[in-house]
Amino acid sequence: MGPVDNTLERLGITLPAAPKPVAAYVPFTQSHGGHLIYVSGQLPFKDGKLLTTGPAPSAVTIELATEAARQCCINALAVLRDATNGDLDQIAQILRIGVFVLSDTGFDGQPKIANGASELLAAVFGNAGKHARAAVGANALPLNATVELELVAELRTPQKS
Amino acid sequence: MGPVDNTLERLGITLPAAPKPVAAYVPFTQSHGGHLIYVSGQLPFKDGKLLTTGPAPSAVTIELATEAARQCCINALAVLRDATNGDLDQIAQILRIGVFVLSDTGFDGQPKIANGASELLAAVFGNAGKHARAAVGANALPLNATVELELVAELRTPQKS
Amino acid sequence: MGPVDNTLERLGITLPAAPKPVAAYVPFTQSHGGHLIYVSGQLPFKDGKLLTTGPAPSAVTIELATEAARQCCINALAVLRDATNGDLDQIAQILRIGVFVLSDTGFDGQPKIANGASELLAAVFGNAGKHARAAVGANALPLNATVELELVAELRTPQKS
Repeated sequence: MGPVDNTLERLGITLPAAPKPVAAYVPFTQSHGGHLIYVSGQLPFKDGKLLTTGPAPSAVTIELATEAARQCCINALAVLRDATNGDLDQIAQILRIGVFVLSDTGFDGQPKIANGASELLAAVFGNAGKHARAAVGANALPLNATVELELVAELRTPQKS
Repeated sequence: MGPVDNTLERLGITLPAAPKPVAAYVPFTQSHGGHLIYVSGQLPFKDGKLLTTGPAPSAVTIELATEAARQCCINALAVLRDATNGDLDQIAQILRIGVFVLSDTGFDGQPKIANGASELLAAVFGNAGKHARAAVGANALPLNATVELELVAELRTPQKS
Repeated sequence: MGPVDNTLERLGITLPAAPKPVAAYVPFTQSHGGHLIYVSGQLPFKDGKLLTTGPAPSAVTIELATEAARQCCINALAVLRDATNGDLDQIAQILRIGVFVLSDTGFDGQPKIANGASELLAAVFGNAGKHARAAVGANALPLNATVELELVAELRTPQKS
């Protein structure tokens, strides 16, 4: 177990199996040189079910939506674990996350909700977890999930696919 | 004609001229080293007209919206053809597609619609067409188009612009 | 002062201090090799206040929303200035901008509004400012801002962070 695995254990997080894409694409791609990993949009699946569905804040409280963003991020970590052949210490930097929050029209609290993911990344990876971010609202998301999160990361050592 | 051109012919797809951007930007950029191609958001133009306008599913059926996603992807392929100086076999990997589906509030079928693009990429490029994806809903899109699709691809050999 | 600084002066643009992220992330990241810069989603802050809030066109005219997109871009330039240690001439290419426009449902004028950013980039950087773009609508954005803009750029010379 490397440092990141130890941190996950300390945080009480057991990574699930990486969720299967819900359609005709793959969980991640890597650039030819193997440095950049693109992780597909993740939904807040936990134990095979969506943690929350419906928009914030009318159907889902900000607190629960924040939990959903964190769960999307846990699922992205599970994908990254696969992308690094199990060695999350290979993550040099989380370059960008995109966070889509299913929102009532005019709701403006996406940053707080997206922090559910951002704070987890900082806790797990330290400086390597500091990322650029775009957090926006959406009136509709796949499976009516409250949050969808995608991610681009850079590896220390290029991986062979 | 290379293998990808042969596949397009077998699929009965004739790539159009790459659509002109509808505003002050360019159809694609490439990174300095020429490895990464960023393709601008494509709308479902066909023969100079939008295939569909309005949201799914109230104004446009899921089936037609899926066709629209496929048409956006055909237009993205036309841009990639230009980006590769006509040699689509230079595509090493479709790294990511972003699919925005004009949606009625709460509609949750974006993955099926985005498959119109994803399945085409798999058919055209095989393994090189397997991509990461974010598919989301939007309450408003340029020209009231039903779908907008953007794409990042990697080339085998860096191209000179 | 380099050429880009001279252009900014000629345009009458004084870059502000780069806005602080409104939550737990960083203004920009750079890839390990230092070539790619990912700039976080920027809001139209000017002198510490949002230039506009609310959707276009019901709460904010298209003209003002276009100004807001330009202001987001000015703030992104301020972040890029930090990312290049003050030397904006290090920008080799603006690879992609993503523009989210807070929109009334069915509003289709996002391209015109996003041009507020695109035209500024062309004016400031010339050919290096020509970018790929995705402009879409959203029913909800952080702090109810009318526009959010994110950006990926490539540098001529890798920077040390």
